[in-house]
Amino acid sequence: MTKPSVTDRGFGPARHAELALLLEVAGTPKPGNVDRRRDLSDLHFEHFLTGAVGSASGLRLAEDGASVGEAFETAVAGMSKQGGGNTQFGCVLLLVPLVRAAAAGDLSPAGVTDVVEQTTVDDAVAFYRAFEHVDVAVGDPPEDASDLDVRRGSEAESALREQGLTFLDVMELSAEGDANAREWTGGFARTFRAAESILADEGPVTDRVARAFLDLLAEEPDTLVVTNHGDAVARDVMDRAAAVSNLDEAEELAESFVAEGINPGTTADIVCAATFVALERGVPL
Amino acid sequence: MTKPSVTDRGFGPARHAELALLLEVAGTPKPGNVDRRRDLSDLHFEHFLTGAVGSASGLRLAEDGASVGEAFETAVAGMSKQGGGNTQFGCVLLLVPLVRAAAAGDLSPAGVTDVVEQTTVDDAVAFYRAFEHVDVAVGDPPEDASDLDVRRGSEAESALREQGLTFLDVMELSAEGDANAREWTGGFARTFRAAESILADEGPVTDRVARAFLDLLAEEPDTLVVTNHGDAVARDVMDRAAAVSNLDEAEELAESFVAEGINPGTTADIVCAATFVALERGVPL
Repeated sequence: MTKPSVTDRGFGPARHAELALLLEVAGTPKPGNVDRRRDLSDLHFEHFLTGAVGSASGLRLAEDGASVGEAFETAVAGMSKQGGGNTQFGCVLLLVPLVRAAAAGDLSPAGVTDVVEQTTVDDAVAFYRAFEHVDVAVGDPPEDASDLDVRRGSEAESALREQGLTFLDVMELSAEGDANAREWTGGFARTFRAAESILADEGPVTDRVARAFLDLLAEEPDTLVVTNHGDAVARDVMDRAAAVSNLDEAEELAESFVAEGINPGTTADIVCAATFVALERGVPL
Repeated sequence: MTKPSVTDRGFGPARHAELALLLEVAGTPKPGNVDRRRDLSDLHFEHFLTGAVGSASGLRLAEDGASVGEAFETAVAGMSKQGGGNTQFGCVLLLVPLVRAAAAGDLSPAGVTDVVEQTTVDDAVAFYRAFEHVDVAVGDPPEDASDLDVRRGSEAESALREQGLTFLDVMELSAEGDANAREWTGGFARTFRAAESILADEGPVTDRVARAFLDLLAEEPDTLVVTNHGDAVARDVMDRAAAVSNLDEAEELAESFVAEGINPGTTADIVCAATFVALERGVPL
């Protein structure tokens, strides 16, 4: 598989992943999210810049072949060294296996599926530990799985080990209610599809990112909106995104979502992952 | 010397330098420069994001103790892997010795002066080679020094070696007409002063960066404005910056400077360097 942009730009996968974190937050308008033009009340643009730079060590570990769990926990720990709290937990969850796949020379649905299928129980334990570095908005676990609530952090270790659950197993348990987990279990289907739309689009990459965000938002309920506001609001958000036909119209939606406290953060995670794939495949900058 | 933010944030000097590149371009308004709210016609925000990530390898070399010339050339080569051209050449010129000084545990006028005084002829040759990676707007050299015109790139090597000129010697030859070179030869006086004003200021760091930019712009003619428009315009720019008393008033100046093609880029370089020092000294994020 050829990777022209890596060669041309001289950036390895870890640098492209860091750049994807920056381009994602720069893309505007991304209704309801922090972007180049908008901050949220306690979550500012500069927190995302700092989070991206802080993630870089963990992303580098992934490029260098460290385990997915170690790379992820390191990236999250680094990301959290700023006052905004959780800026890019979900982005990093998607980027780490993608960086591993790219470094192994097969950035494809099959390649990244290989990576996640090789995760271990130790990786799952590291994933749980990552929740101790930062507050992440999550839904309740299934009733029969309260010992696996991610909010238990490293206290869930014994349950993970007793049940022999890998990082991928944990994602499978969450897949029904979490669009990021579904990327893990489904060959990163939306990520790769959005990457192709970014590549086929025209104009500045940050505009392409914003359009890809709107398309994804119109396509499925955003997990973070479901967690914070319930299914009905998440369906309404989809409909309102679908009604927008260009970035100018999206400006108004962006103002509305910020005013209503609607933050479709999971959709932003997938756009970030797609931006990484587009960078690896040579989107011009 | 204690360095609380390095310890607290877990960022080494190279990461803080990369973050300074990002915070500098995010600071708004910075009249006449690309910032979070404004692009120039061929130079966009995303080029600066890419330039910052691309510089990181060179900045890391500086942290790890590589020669100033090698670290600088590597950073410039990496910075140039985007379509905007010269985004952060001047910033990197200031950051590399500052990163070296910070890594050596003495980020002070004396510490960075030690670093630049230890530069060699090989470092000077690397500095000239860096001009081959990117077009940099520079003034003409003195009449008796045309063999040292930086636009000659590596062709100036023999002249540098014959005359035994170090990187610092080259900066001394340019100091009269280049505010960045004067930082090198004068213990980074404006950098450290602006860093203290950023630390003493209040509010988001990007607002502090913008206010420090206005103060510096009102204080001395901007070298890049002199190069592109002459002394009279550069003096006028100073006066107009001095007449602005807050960031709201600076918005109007930003619109005017962009419309007039006035780009005070050297002042932005010094603000970037000051932001690095402020990060090392614990400015909150």
